[in-house]
Amino acid sequence: MLVEGKSYQTVWMEGSSVFLIQQNLLPFEFKIHECKTYWETCMAITDMVVRGAGAIGAAAGYAMAQAFLLSQSKEKSVLIREAKQDIEHTRPTAKNLFYAVDRVYKAGLVSPENAVMEAHKVALEDMESSRSIGKYGSGLFKSKTNVLTHCNAGWLAFVDYGTALAPVYLAKRQGKEVFVYVDETRPRGQGARLTAWELKNDEIPHVIIPDNAAASLMAQKKIDMVIVGADRIAANGDTANKIGTLGRAILAKEFGIPFYVAAPSSTFDLDCPNGKEIPIEERSQDEVLYQTGPDVNGNLVKVMVTSPGSEALNPAFDVTPAKYITGFITEKGIIKPHFQSIRKMMTPLSL
Amino acid sequence: MLVEGKSYQTVWMEGSSVFLIQQNLLPFEFKIHECKTYWETCMAITDMVVRGAGAIGAAAGYAMAQAFLLSQSKEKSVLIREAKQDIEHTRPTAKNLFYAVDRVYKAGLVSPENAVMEAHKVALEDMESSRSIGKYGSGLFKSKTNVLTHCNAGWLAFVDYGTALAPVYLAKRQGKEVFVYVDETRPRGQGARLTAWELKNDEIPHVIIPDNAAASLMAQKKIDMVIVGADRIAANGDTANKIGTLGRAILAKEFGIPFYVAAPSSTFDLDCPNGKEIPIEERSQDEVLYQTGPDVNGNLVKVMVTSPGSEALNPAFDVTPAKYITGFITEKGIIKPHFQSIRKMMTPLSL
Repeated sequence: MLVEGKSYQTVWMEGSSVFLIQQNLLPFEFKIHECKTYWETCMAITDMVVRGAGAIGAAAGYAMAQAFLLSQSKEKSVLIREAKQDIEHTRPTAKNLFYAVDRVYKAGLVSPENAVMEAHKVALEDMESSRSIGKYGSGLFKSKTNVLTHCNAGWLAFVDYGTALAPVYLAKRQGKEVFVYVDETRPRGQGARLTAWELKNDEIPHVIIPDNAAASLMAQKKIDMVIVGADRIAANGDTANKIGTLGRAILAKEFGIPFYVAAPSSTFDLDCPNGKEIPIEERSQDEVLYQTGPDVNGNLVKVMVTSPGSEALNPAFDVTPAKYITGFITEKGIIKPHFQSIRKMMTPLSL
Repeated sequence: MLVEGKSYQTVWMEGSSVFLIQQNLLPFEFKIHECKTYWETCMAITDMVVRGAGAIGAAAGYAMAQAFLLSQSKEKSVLIREAKQDIEHTRPTAKNLFYAVDRVYKAGLVSPENAVMEAHKVALEDMESSRSIGKYGSGLFKSKTNVLTHCNAGWLAFVDYGTALAPVYLAKRQGKEVFVYVDETRPRGQGARLTAWELKNDEIPHVIIPDNAAASLMAQKKIDMVIVGADRIAANGDTANKIGTLGRAILAKEFGIPFYVAAPSSTFDLDCPNGKEIPIEERSQDEVLYQTGPDVNGNLVKVMVTSPGSEALNPAFDVTPAKYITGFITEKGIIKPHFQSIRKMMTPLSL
């Protein structure tokens, strides 16, 4: 997508370096972060310099390729296996990460160059999937649609275009009227910071709402549709996504509002029978206790926003049972949240 | 309740001055604010120096008494009617405000001293109601109970004891084990700031959670009961309370968790047939766009927490239909959310 007139992806590789849009500085600063080694790329994933299911996947694929480029010595296989584990331990929930690392690992057993090529392919496929999700998803929009989205599943969360926001971008280009209610998405505020930044950048009408306001807006019939992304989808359709997604899904069902999950097939995990098997990342309580932003002089300041001495919980994701999901918007079409439909979509024959 | 070993109420009157715990400085500073005129008390209500249904009611009653003390001249009746309107325009949603102002206004028509006495009576009744709510509510607790609460309906929100937290305080004194999950309650964070401060002050085990985490904790069966306060309850049981309450009520119903609203009878509005008639206050979007807290040096700093140039919605309350409410914990006992039960409780005969 365009940033100040220049086209960007969130993640790319040049030579042996991986380049990332430094998302933890957004929306207050736009900067590119260079990772010279697989280890630096791992750190960037853990510290959320890069975040979002697809972008994490692409970065992890490139990290695996960097590891192959690095280890040309005798102990190659040991080093590579260690590197693979390091990369897999950066974030536990996103399926795309394991998917990308597996593919690049297998390709790298042939040659380091093959690993790099496979990592590029993973990133390219992510872009193409997102574009296709946008095409299928925008077909759900009427000439005027009010969408609620949670967290950021826009182009920043993928290599380009995004998933939950791809239909919004495409509908706008088709001349449809779209208005987006953007959940703030505490504690990290990815909605208020990243989704709002993306939408403003693309001149799409939107408003930020406190997470608490979603139910009231639904009750007032102000929301026609909810679209969110996903970090991992189990074989039965249970979906792990940013904390708060489960709540939105239950509310949408209560108010009869369609609730869609937009995700490429790389997010589906047929080895995971249901949501109970998805590991949920617990992050530092500091993300709840403190908030960082520019003060009146534009200097980034970290302030405490809770009562001193009290502790906080910070589960990063929750699991939405399939029964609350209207459908999955995938690059292969819109499918029902049932084991049979998911399995059919995941078999090459259905292509 | 005790603060650093000294007993405090949130609101009191001495001479012609109203004194308030300056709640907009909590939890980072504990300070008393003096209002010498009814107009200063109005400002304190509007600016949320004092907040919470019962505390607003008591402050508004005292403001009305201050107006009577001030106007001893010929134009008395005009001035008093203007003052009444000024006080009523400070905050539109809380029923207690109108209830207190009406009582003190009628009493003041006899003499200014009578107005002051009636205002004291309103405050005293608020305290007694809260204590009684605590007694009835704590009867719902088993020997070990995990409670979720939203916003702050503790003693800071009333003159003393509180409503939603009164049963918690009492259960603890009865030797029961209580653990409180405290919703952060964005945008103003009354849960993370005030409820957490109260609970820490009283050494009640608790943890702050992002508003988004409630659904996930309920799904994991970590919450036995939800108790919230109320700003106004319509004749049919529909309840206006802090934004986000509706969402918690729907989630509780979905997961089969009892959802109680704790409120004194002064919060019930028999003239209001249902929730659609309750005016909902829209507050400044700045409460969503900015957060204020101490920086690393302890200086209070206001920082931007959303993407620059995007706007935000900030409805302060939502309306929870009676069908999602298990019961009302009132000073007269626990009643069902039906018109008949509410009417019976509100008639003097039922006392």
